[in-house]
Amino acid sequence: MGPGPSGAHPRVLRAMTAPLLGHLDPEFLRIMDECRVMLRQVLRTENAVTIATPGTGTSGMEAAVMNLVEPGDNVVIGVCGYFGDRIVQMAERAGGNVTRVDAAWGSPVDPAEMQKAIAASGQVKLVGIVHAETSTGVMTPPEPIAKLAKEAGALMLVDCVTSLGGVPVEADAWGADVVYSGTQKCLSAPPGVAPVTFSPAAWAKVRAREVPSNTWYLDMSLLEAYWDERRSYHHTAPISMVYALHQALSLVLEEGLEQRWARHERNGRALQAGLEAMGLGLHADEGYRLPVLTTVKIPEGVNDGEVRGALLKRHSIEVGGGLGDLKGKVWRVGLMGESSTEGNVLLFLSALGRIVAEQGVQLDVKAGIATASERLRGQEA
Amino acid sequence: MGPGPSGAHPRVLRAMTAPLLGHLDPEFLRIMDECRVMLRQVLRTENAVTIATPGTGTSGMEAAVMNLVEPGDNVVIGVCGYFGDRIVQMAERAGGNVTRVDAAWGSPVDPAEMQKAIAASGQVKLVGIVHAETSTGVMTPPEPIAKLAKEAGALMLVDCVTSLGGVPVEADAWGADVVYSGTQKCLSAPPGVAPVTFSPAAWAKVRAREVPSNTWYLDMSLLEAYWDERRSYHHTAPISMVYALHQALSLVLEEGLEQRWARHERNGRALQAGLEAMGLGLHADEGYRLPVLTTVKIPEGVNDGEVRGALLKRHSIEVGGGLGDLKGKVWRVGLMGESSTEGNVLLFLSALGRIVAEQGVQLDVKAGIATASERLRGQEA
Repeated sequence: MGPGPSGAHPRVLRAMTAPLLGHLDPEFLRIMDECRVMLRQVLRTENAVTIATPGTGTSGMEAAVMNLVEPGDNVVIGVCGYFGDRIVQMAERAGGNVTRVDAAWGSPVDPAEMQKAIAASGQVKLVGIVHAETSTGVMTPPEPIAKLAKEAGALMLVDCVTSLGGVPVEADAWGADVVYSGTQKCLSAPPGVAPVTFSPAAWAKVRAREVPSNTWYLDMSLLEAYWDERRSYHHTAPISMVYALHQALSLVLEEGLEQRWARHERNGRALQAGLEAMGLGLHADEGYRLPVLTTVKIPEGVNDGEVRGALLKRHSIEVGGGLGDLKGKVWRVGLMGESSTEGNVLLFLSALGRIVAEQGVQLDVKAGIATASERLRGQEA
Repeated sequence: MGPGPSGAHPRVLRAMTAPLLGHLDPEFLRIMDECRVMLRQVLRTENAVTIATPGTGTSGMEAAVMNLVEPGDNVVIGVCGYFGDRIVQMAERAGGNVTRVDAAWGSPVDPAEMQKAIAASGQVKLVGIVHAETSTGVMTPPEPIAKLAKEAGALMLVDCVTSLGGVPVEADAWGADVVYSGTQKCLSAPPGVAPVTFSPAAWAKVRAREVPSNTWYLDMSLLEAYWDERRSYHHTAPISMVYALHQALSLVLEEGLEQRWARHERNGRALQAGLEAMGLGLHADEGYRLPVLTTVKIPEGVNDGEVRGALLKRHSIEVGGGLGDLKGKVWRVGLMGESSTEGNVLLFLSALGRIVAEQGVQLDVKAGIATASERLRGQEA
């Protein structure tokens, strides 16, 4: 129940024990092709250029940023947490002139502030935000910002590492030009490959580059030439991880995307209502809280590390600590993919209440459990 | 029996089914620490900075090149195949002034040519070669070239993707400053992480960089800060791949490095002697042939694709085709890690002889098998 990796389905783990096929074996190429089809379904896109990069979620970010940003490009990035800041760092390494639009850690990126920054930046080539900020538990709606990008003639980048497969991601309907994600969050596969999609407009910019991207390993032109019918050798695909991705995507589609979103929504809101009913505060602004990752304020007088240690040792529950300025101030509780279950909601509330009580802070665990249970049964508290 | 991925031991595959620990979970950190210790043993190095990068073998190459080469650095790369050329491409993207020293595809890099190029290049910062060229089956001895690099005050890079765990790799004894490898060759783990080691001198250059490396995902300063006791979050480690690496390294050390080298040597030489006794030619120069990867000349009148297709379909044997100029001219036959067995040597000779005969070219399979068998029993033919 941390901010990822989430638990994997037994079918996903079992898939990795299959014998290693060659990276150009016809059977393996078939698996890759099926992954492409399923990735498009899960990302809700028609983009031809839809692949999984050979690395963890951050490799998806690097592939997106390093391929799209050319030296001297004006770039506007909305930053409301740790991962927005990371996009800025990468865009700077790619040679971009980056304007960052900061929001408080706990609030979403403000479209009005983005609009001002875009207007002040001359010809903007790329606008970017993080859909689901894993550091704060905040969701920034991409659509209004994608609209601003389009009006300015810029491409729109959306980081969906923590949202894909858990909350609605609609790459095409949003008007997003590049979307990337990880596998170890709501897709519930091990970390090791990263879904990435480029719109035709984004792809045209990549194809028109005058200097190649900074990175050879994550050069999208080379990666796509392996993933598409050219099958040009670039790297030895992380075979077992592709098997895992294939199973994980199959499981998502068997459950149904909408049903899966509803499950995450129900469990996440039940947890949040339960925590508040117990007397705890939530860090993220109301209305922008992710159901898949909840940031809980650590009450006064409670030791962050001791509580997380006891949860792990006594209940095998991992939760994340705060990153950056939020260190020691919040816990980050994930309900992602396989880990998003009613049982986990109730177990967590009960375990947390008991451990916090041992530190001398009494919470109303009974009210928390009752409230969460009502929500789980679909009744408003 | 292709050029990789090789087959994995059941213990390695099973390791990947373990539940996903968090990337900062104390138990996972212990596994990482043990990997570091074992990687140093397998690489024969005392280098503190020894990690596995979160990607396939090419990610190790990118981490080595992009971190060591700074814009304007003079770099001399020996190229005797596809992968040497790849180092050149990366070093150019990193902004290096690259001098390439070519050798014929089938011969090793010539130290005398390297010496000339180093002398002609002004202050050289980095010299690089591929120890085991997977495209040609050729081994270039690193030690004489490392000595030249040292005399010129340059750092020495050695690509050991295909050699590590199969033929002697002696990072420190060679005087190599940066060595990287993959897991899917002679270590017999799935592709997905890449061993990398930096000497103190190489690390000093990385630490003294004035501009950060081109890559954020494979920035060694950030990666090392996660792998060492600082445990600074950088990426979500490819957890299952690290489990697999841990088991694979354990298996290497249980077998014993010297014993493992001897096994690869015995099986590889038996295959090569058997192929020659059958009447086939070997592409790589005698004296520089890798035991772990053999390039066999395709006889006149034999269809490359049909033979490889029949081997795969009827015997589940994958062999590689030629890369670049060698396309259609050679087969690349791997005997790496778990795939380096006596049974595979004999099966391959027998299957290949039969399939080639169907194309109207008769080989002396009996002589090939007899010669290989004698070699396997330790007798010279």
